[in-house]
Amino acid sequence: MIKEKMFKWLNDLWPICRSITGKGVRETLIYLKDLLPDLKILEASSGYQAFDWTVPDEWNIHNAWIEDEKGNRIIDFKNNNLHVVGYSVSVNKFIDLATLQSHLFSLPNQPDAIPYVTSYYSPEWGFCLSHNQRNSLKSGLYKVFIDSELKPGVMNFGEVILSGENKKEVLLSTYICHPSMANNELSGPVVTAAIVQWLKSLPRLRYTYRILFIPETIGSIVYLSKNLDHLKQNVIAGFNITCVGDDNCYSFLPSRAGDTLSDRIAIHVLKNIDPGFKKYSWLDRGSDERQYCAPGVDLPIATIMRSKYGEYPEYHTSLDNLSFVTATGLEGGFLALKKSIESIELNCIPIANTVCEPFLSKRKLYPTLSKKNSAIETKNMMNFLTYTDGKKDLIEISNIINVPVWKLTNIVEKLKKENLIKII
Amino acid sequence: MIKEKMFKWLNDLWPICRSITGKGVRETLIYLKDLLPDLKILEASSGYQAFDWTVPDEWNIHNAWIEDEKGNRIIDFKNNNLHVVGYSVSVNKFIDLATLQSHLFSLPNQPDAIPYVTSYYSPEWGFCLSHNQRNSLKSGLYKVFIDSELKPGVMNFGEVILSGENKKEVLLSTYICHPSMANNELSGPVVTAAIVQWLKSLPRLRYTYRILFIPETIGSIVYLSKNLDHLKQNVIAGFNITCVGDDNCYSFLPSRAGDTLSDRIAIHVLKNIDPGFKKYSWLDRGSDERQYCAPGVDLPIATIMRSKYGEYPEYHTSLDNLSFVTATGLEGGFLALKKSIESIELNCIPIANTVCEPFLSKRKLYPTLSKKNSAIETKNMMNFLTYTDGKKDLIEISNIINVPVWKLTNIVEKLKKENLIKII
Amino acid sequence: MIKEKMFKWLNDLWPICRSITGKGVRETLIYLKDLLPDLKILEASSGYQAFDWTVPDEWNIHNAWIEDEKGNRIIDFKNNNLHVVGYSVSVNKFIDLATLQSHLFSLPNQPDAIPYVTSYYSPEWGFCLSHNQRNSLKSGLYKVFIDSELKPGVMNFGEVILSGENKKEVLLSTYICHPSMANNELSGPVVTAAIVQWLKSLPRLRYTYRILFIPETIGSIVYLSKNLDHLKQNVIAGFNITCVGDDNCYSFLPSRAGDTLSDRIAIHVLKNIDPGFKKYSWLDRGSDERQYCAPGVDLPIATIMRSKYGEYPEYHTSLDNLSFVTATGLEGGFLALKKSIESIELNCIPIANTVCEPFLSKRKLYPTLSKKNSAIETKNMMNFLTYTDGKKDLIEISNIINVPVWKLTNIVEKLKKENLIKII
Repeated sequence: MIKEKMFKWLNDLWPICRSITGKGVRETLIYLKDLLPDLKILEASSGYQAFDWTVPDEWNIHNAWIEDEKGNRIIDFKNNNLHVVGYSVSVNKFIDLATLQSHLFSLPNQPDAIPYVTSYYSPEWGFCLSHNQRNSLKSGLYKVFIDSELKPGVMNFGEVILSGENKKEVLLSTYICHPSMANNELSGPVVTAAIVQWLKSLPRLRYTYRILFIPETIGSIVYLSKNLDHLKQNVIAGFNITCVGDDNCYSFLPSRAGDTLSDRIAIHVLKNIDPGFKKYSWLDRGSDERQYCAPGVDLPIATIMRSKYGEYPEYHTSLDNLSFVTATGLEGGFLALKKSIESIELNCIPIANTVCEPFLSKRKLYPTLSKKNSAIETKNMMNFLTYTDGKKDLIEISNIINVPVWKLTNIVEKLKKENLIKII
Repeated sequence: MIKEKMFKWLNDLWPICRSITGKGVRETLIYLKDLLPDLKILEASSGYQAFDWTVPDEWNIHNAWIEDEKGNRIIDFKNNNLHVVGYSVSVNKFIDLATLQSHLFSLPNQPDAIPYVTSYYSPEWGFCLSHNQRNSLKSGLYKVFIDSELKPGVMNFGEVILSGENKKEVLLSTYICHPSMANNELSGPVVTAAIVQWLKSLPRLRYTYRILFIPETIGSIVYLSKNLDHLKQNVIAGFNITCVGDDNCYSFLPSRAGDTLSDRIAIHVLKNIDPGFKKYSWLDRGSDERQYCAPGVDLPIATIMRSKYGEYPEYHTSLDNLSFVTATGLEGGFLALKKSIESIELNCIPIANTVCEPFLSKRKLYPTLSKKNSAIETKNMMNFLTYTDGKKDLIEISNIINVPVWKLTNIVEKLKKENLIKII
Repeated sequence: MIKEKMFKWLNDLWPICRSITGKGVRETLIYLKDLLPDLKILEASSGYQAFDWTVPDEWNIHNAWIEDEKGNRIIDFKNNNLHVVGYSVSVNKFIDLATLQSHLFSLPNQPDAIPYVTSYYSPEWGFCLSHNQRNSLKSGLYKVFIDSELKPGVMNFGEVILSGENKKEVLLSTYICHPSMANNELSGPVVTAAIVQWLKSLPRLRYTYRILFIPETIGSIVYLSKNLDHLKQNVIAGFNITCVGDDNCYSFLPSRAGDTLSDRIAIHVLKNIDPGFKKYSWLDRGSDERQYCAPGVDLPIATIMRSKYGEYPEYHTSLDNLSFVTATGLEGGFLALKKSIESIELNCIPIANTVCEPFLSKRKLYPTLSKKNSAIETKNMMNFLTYTDGKKDLIEISNIINVPVWKLTNIVEKLKKENLIKII
């Protein structure tokens, strides 16, 4: 089953120490390529200029730990890759506790959690640990050891393109730059991989699909710098895929414009599958939509999530783990995105072929006996027909008549077969 | 008095067994022509093709009853013309109770009511009766007898045209195809007839009035098929007139577009005469507005009702009778439509002839003594004047300044006389 | 301090008996010219035709009183200039109490207050007094004496023009035609004078400022009749300044259009300095905005007040006095208008110079260490940047990101310095 498959992938990818560059990203992409043969693994060199940004040197870490005076290894990168601040430079020395404190990060309000901290663009070193452990540190000397490299290399990213009948594209983007955290981020690439396998299995695709596995921020900026014109001309809808693995209610973050096809689709799907879903504002943004929807870029990218990044206490800590994310949570994320993509594929503008209501009885689409109440399917068909004025698409009609778009498929097919509507 | 006159007409028309074709419609039209000499009785032959529809054969019924084994006539069409399913074919035979049951219609939730059932487009026969009576039927043989004819003939409908100074038209449509039911439908033709008499009595009509008495659905489709281009070019407003005879609060059903002149007028009138009126949506439609506002037809037709069809328990049963509809109920329906038509006739776009406020004191339209509060009429005049910018019609100004349009007539006349405004 | 300065001016101007013409207006303008050397004192002659209006004769009053039979002076204009109905003609005779009553004005619901009454456009005479005093009058003869003149002369008004870098203008208008009342009206000219002094003190003005001290209604109509084309071409925003001196919450009266720059500025300022401010509608208008926003004039004039005219019980009575208006109340009025003018000066349309988010870390505008929460200034800067799409002005962006426009100044300056945005 798909949910178990996704949960297995997530467990496989969990131990890898990812960052925005380095071996962790490559290992992740190689694992994904095994699932998705269409995946192309691409790269941008350190120093590559993408708009206002520069691809940083490649960072790789081999080992890191802290030992107390007695040689007890009290913190070890091998136990949890969150223990080291991302992009830490090498260090190997004895320091006293006071000096050590200025390199430690913990969360007083979440004393059991190890926080996730990075310093991509300034040479620092540091360790992250639980506040409880930090409080237990005794004064004295500590040996701090980090064996890492920061030198020119590449930033890797992955791209899948599935051609459809139409050159217009749907863009799906997810990120692969976080160490061991489950909802933000591994749920994203895992659900996206399942979506790619599902898309591949379909007999036909109306639209072309472009699916990206990239480091967050610098990855989307680099990708945009290489593909901006093409994307602006072709992308009609798309989603940034993140935080799709826990069991809480759905969340929605709009595009900057707020009324693109992606926004309309996402709201339509969510209100029909989870009417209590949380609706955030563009002011709550925080992932790659910041670039995709930046002024002058303005791609139609919205975000469908379970618990939104930044809004759940486990976020960016060691508590965002394999308990917080579940197989059913991933399945829920997968289904919401699948329904959204199906809705994009279905969407069209129907127009009536008749003046006045058509005479449905003679086509056995309407009961010949007129009594007080009519059946729900008849009502849906009549409501659908009254809005086939060539100005409204399926999503708009669905919203007006309060029926999910996927329940109109049957009606649309029947009416097309009877030549009562045509599609513009 | 008009209300008694209308109630008498309703009583006179009550016993006639109407259907979408046949003698009942003709008798009804002949009765109306006696009240409205301008009425033209028109017809479309069986087989006439109107868009996707075909005028059916003409149906007439002479007699119908059920007798039990002992010859007791337990159901007789002569007692209530709802007893026979509309368009029933002839039958004359003995059948057992079980077979009879499949031809009977009753309402378990309204055990005293005889339901109204039709089968225009499929040859059936059937009887309608109260659920209480149905429950009392004993097993045994029953003689079922229906003497009806279904053969090529005509579908009749009536048309009144009252020419005004302007070729632009107001369309009023009501239907005459139901047997003995009072609110839906006899209140419609009765109030419409009173409106026609009132229009005829006016010294001048600004607009031309086109008033239709037609069988519902097939009648409006046939009429549209013969007059579509003319109507689309000329009709500026109009109402479907139905369910205007009971004493409950007013109801409003918008046009499909929802913002036509008719919608604006109806909402303006109703909120000023009955602020608690019920506002339905286009999804609640169910009468000839379905055709008048169909995609591609798009006439500006709204509906002002008392209790809306489909929403009151007596609807389409024998309980929709001469007790449910009253003389005062009909008068209320008449007055709302009269006020709506008066508002259409009054409506115009005024524009100020002065820059800044005019000096009203010298024209004795403003008090010379300035004290803390000013009179309501002065306030209404000043409020009216401040919106005479040539962009807003009377209805819009009335809504903004919260005064019914009919209370502005006097102000408009005074200001026109003083040459302070002109009408665009 | 400015608040004490304003309160002194108000006390100085208090005793003058102003009307729409006459010495009181001139004395007031001469006092203001002493404060504002740029003030030009202008005039229109009696009989001057301004659109539909005519400047009336000039009225001056020397003395007025009522004595009882014993020669007790029971009412004396010298005690309170509200005692005489504005524009009263001369009178000097004995009359009985019944006759006197028809010339008396009092307020039964405010028995201690002397009302303010005028009769500019009809020759009358009358006295105003407290209802308590009126009730104490005994029958008998009274001597009524008014020594006034009504003859051709001039109507005076004042104009200050402060040239800015741009010929586009901000119009400020206040009125100087009421006798001794403090909130309506003296707070208006006093706060406006302080605004003029502040504007003069600024190193640069982006816009040109046109500030008017005029008699209400006839003054604005005369001014418009002389300057309409220029004002329509140049005024981009402005305020009618009145009722800005008491200590109650702020009030807002929109322009007739309701969405001009002035409306947007006023609402932005008020919601940020007094979220509970009262929002009136154009239907509540009552001062010179009636002329500035009349159809065909349509200047963008809104009104920011403390307690709105007509809405506080002291309005247009002797209770609108030097206790009702306070130094802090005037300061509040001054500050709201100052912030509004500053917001107009600041407002602009920024557009980003980069594609995607700029790389702020390298400019030390963003923390290099990425942790769970970010600082409020960083958040405001990122939120500001995401809306620099060249379509939104500062006010719109401020409203969206929920930060007062004056807190964006610093951000705008930093980003301009870094060449990350430019101003359209």
